Parts: sequence; structure tokens; C-alpha cells
Amino acid sequence: MTEQISQRSSSSGPFSRGLVQVFTGDGKGKTTAALGAVIRALGHGLKVCVVFFMKGDYPYGECKILSQLPNVKIARFGSQQFIDPTNIKPEEKEQARQALAAAREAVLSGSYDLVVLDEVNLAVAWQLVELDKVIKLIGDKPRNVELILTGRKADTKLIQLADLVTEMLKIKHPYDEGTKARKGIEY
Amino acid sequence: MTEQISQRSSSSGPFSRGLVQVFTGDGKGKTTAALGAVIRALGHGLKVCVVFFMKGDYPYGECKILSQLPNVKIARFGSQQFIDPTNIKPEEKEQARQALAAAREAVLSGSYDLVVLDEVNLAVAWQLVELDKVIKLIGDKPRNVELILTGRKADTKLIQLADLVTEMLKIKHPYDEGTKARKGIEY
Repeated sequence: MTEQISQRSSSSGPFSRGLVQVFTGDGKGKTTAALGAVIRALGHGLKVCVVFFMKGDYPYGECKILSQLPNVKIARFGSQQFIDPTNIKPEEKEQARQALAAAREAVLSGSYDLVVLDEVNLAVAWQLVELDKVIKLIGDKPRNVELILTGRKADTKLIQLADLVTEMLKIKHPYDEGTKARKGIEY
Repeated sequence: MTEQISQRSSSSGPFSRGLVQVFTGDGKGKTTAALGAVIRALGHGLKVCVVFFMKGDYPYGECKILSQLPNVKIARFGSQQFIDPTNIKPEEKEQARQALAAAREAVLSGSYDLVVLDEVNLAVAWQLVELDKVIKLIGDKPRNVELILTGRKADTKLIQLADLVTEMLKIKHPYDEGTKARKGIEY
């Protein structure tokens, strides 16, 4: 780990060292934390790509705003249905494969300073994408690219490889009391 | 708590019930999660006010982007210096008092669907603002206004009053290994 960090530290990009960040856990705020990081990066003129795994055509409010901003590319993959992890369909795997391919292209392109792989942790946990391919992407990442991986159930290997890991811990959540997801807040 | 929720549930605003959310803990992602929530809300045409406690004129990248968007008001308070909690200055208290007053005005104005009080938890913990005043603000909040309180060391009373609480738990952080805050990522 220490060796990896020092290897990355000689970049000439906007980041002297692009880190791998993981936001995981059952609590709220993983995707929104990544989106906030995007806004912060854009505010400093950085270029950003956000790849949404498993979110398809769902009318997420954030996409509307992000797509209006310069220097950000949004790529959404997945069906409009929520995925049943006990019954993964071939087209869901194919969508996830395409998402990872798009993420890989973005990371290696040299066009982006920050690449967000939203829900990739859960996509790995549900075996929609192969863990080894995500590990390879982290290993192949140019030194100056910052990578943010979000989603519940982050694999311990991803946590080991990451530089910065935050677990969003659910202390209290109104879903537990029967409140449904609300437009403009949860999506 | 249950009673409070049911009292709030008959609103006619964009939210049938505006919640009180708390993002706390030592991990990364509290402010960015709130900012992501702002983007999401704006994407649905909601009106948002973000009050930054203790951040002053610091050139936070996110402010540049947010201030370019419609339907969002940004109010920043605090000196440019980081605050030493063992040596709170009168002007720091005054700035925090003004921040809370601005937050109160925004919450009660009827002009905003979502109000973010960034770093208010820490401002309370450091006794820059009185806990009772924040509790009163939560109590006086119109039913349809969503409130997000961020910052480390959230008081247990605020956690009790909140509907949704997430602790950002630091699993791994490069600061621990001596990495400094990086422009475009941490601020």
C-alpha cells in the first residue's frame, strides 16, 4: 500500500497523486457524497466522468443538473427495474459489463481528472461485474486520476486497495419506520 | 419521535414530510453528501439554501459551481482561519451566530424546500452556537422543509431529534499517512 502511494506521487496532473476513494455502508450519502465531490472538482475546473452502474433511465434529479454543467460526462447503465440479486438477468450483467467498459475507457483516456463508479461496489457484490476487473482497473489507473467507488458491500480487497475509505453507517433511517423514497431527496 | 413525524406528515409542500437529516462522524463525505443532496433537489426544481458555518472566504470549489445554478442561495460565514476549539474568539462566535440567524431566516421564510446547515454540528460541539437554538430551529421548522445538518460530533440531542442520521465512519484516510488536503478534492 505504502509502495503504491509513493509510486503514484510523481504525477504532473492536477492531482500530484490521484487517490482511490471508497464510499460504502448501509447509510445514506454514498452517491450524494460522490456527487458533492464532483461539484467540488468542477468548481476547480477539473474534468469529471460519472458512470452510474445499475441506474438505467431512472429520472435521477442529479443527472439533470450535472448534464447542464461543463466538463462533466454522465454515463448511465442498467435497466429501469431494481435488480433482484437472487435472480440476476443476462441483460443486467451485460449492462454492468458495459458500465465497467465505459469506466475503464474514461479512466485510461486521459480526458478526466476524476472518475466516479457509482454503485460499482454492489455490482461486484452481486457478481454483475468481476472483482478482478475492478482490481485491474485500479491497478491500471494513471497516477493523476482520482477514482471514487460507491455502493454497499464493498469487497475487502477493494477496501485494501483504496487510499481513503468511508463507511456510511446507518444510525437512524426513516425507511425503517415505513417512509418511502421521496423524489428530490432520495432520487 | 413518532409523534413528531406524524405531525409533519400533512404538509402540502413538495415534500409531504420534510425530514431532519444529520451527517456526522470523522469520515469523509459529510459536506459532499449534503452538496450531492442539493444537486439532487435542484434537479427536481426544488429551492435550496446552503449556510456554511465556519468556512468564511475559503475558496471552496463547490461554491463556484453552486452559485452558478438557479434556485440555490449560498451563505458563508466564519473567518478564513481554521478555528482553534481551545481558543474560540468573540468574532468567531459572532460569525456563527449570524450563520444560525441566516439559517433560521431561510428555514422560516417559506422560500426554500431544503436548507443545509453545513458544519453546524461542530459549531454546537465547540460552543460557537447554542444547542438549544438549533433544537428550537428544528422544532420551529415548517413541516415541508427538509433540513440537513452536517459536521463531526453531532450532539446526541440532535441525533434524537433527527429523522435520518448517517455516521461517516473513517475506515482508512490518507491524512493518517501524512497526505495534505488537495485542492479540488478536499476543498
